[in-house]
Amino acid sequence: MMEIEIKARVKNRDEVKERIKSIGNFVRKEHQEDLYFDSPYRNFVESGEVLRIRKTLHKNTLTYKKKRTDERARIRIEHEAKVESGDDIAEILEDLGFIQIAKIRKEREIYNTNECKIELDMVEGLGEFVEVEILIPEDEDITKSKEKIFEILEKIGVPRENIEKKPYLELYLDKKRWIGEKKR
Amino acid sequence: MMEIEIKARVKNRDEVKERIKSIGNFVRKEHQEDLYFDSPYRNFVESGEVLRIRKTLHKNTLTYKKKRTDERARIRIEHEAKVESGDDIAEILEDLGFIQIAKIRKEREIYNTNECKIELDMVEGLGEFVEVEILIPEDEDITKSKEKIFEILEKIGVPRENIEKKPYLELYLDKKRWIGEKKR
Repeated sequence: MMEIEIKARVKNRDEVKERIKSIGNFVRKEHQEDLYFDSPYRNFVESGEVLRIRKTLHKNTLTYKKKRTDERARIRIEHEAKVESGDDIAEILEDLGFIQIAKIRKEREIYNTNECKIELDMVEGLGEFVEVEILIPEDEDITKSKEKIFEILEKIGVPRENIEKKPYLELYLDKKRWIGEKKR
Repeated sequence: MMEIEIKARVKNRDEVKERIKSIGNFVRKEHQEDLYFDSPYRNFVESGEVLRIRKTLHKNTLTYKKKRTDERARIRIEHEAKVESGDDIAEILEDLGFIQIAKIRKEREIYNTNECKIELDMVEGLGEFVEVEILIPEDEDITKSKEKIFEILEKIGVPRENIEKKPYLELYLDKKRWIGEKKR
């Protein structure tokens, strides 16, 4: 399956939340701590690959995502593995030469509708966002699914100009770079 | 902690097993399937590093071992992580460019004594072996521990000339190469 996901900045959280509740069901809230790694043999930020350990209260996962780009939507092929301890896996990745480049913490509220998954995020240091995600078979045309996501965003009160193409990792690294430059 | 381990070929399994039972307690028997991986950026067989997924009935683990060589004993620093599914982790390792180079199956009987751990192995295609293992602090001198292991091997009826310095992976790859050459 392929994950089509569009993210947008949220400036009116209370309103957006009310609107999400009117079209979807609340699933759960979770605190996520994401550790991102770069590889010793290829620049994953440049290649768009993602290697991530996600730590939550009840589950820890190792995820690899391979990027396929498309204007304004992120389409990925993704493999995930549950692990007992995120820290043990981090240790082995570091043994192998992988470098931890970011630790991103967020509070995520997850909602489901018949068509999609909606995630309302407060990301430490980066602000508030909403992500709308649809899963489709790998050979399916994505234009329709993207149009559907745009419609959903409109329904929940998020204008198209709020769409944020950059993944959290990139926003995080941009900010770190910007702070680094300011300090100089 | 550092693991000091000496392995030897067993030609008289029944006798060795009786002798092990007279000095140690049986812990459990398990079927292990070990998947070994090489890396895309360094030859792990040459560097002596080990990246292994071990699948057993009740537990799956990802292990990385960094080699430190010493005559006749293998001394390693080891990190291990429990994972839910060995196959999910294998998939991610392959996504990352790691190459599965061996699948080794064995029946292992594990025994404990006050001083050490003893493992009696039947390895598919490679034969019967015993491994004696001691854990010591990383700064401790290893000569004494090695001497202790030699004594234990003697006690359980395994002569010093049966010591096999090569790890299973190397024996497996040697055999594969040998069969490959025979076929040519």
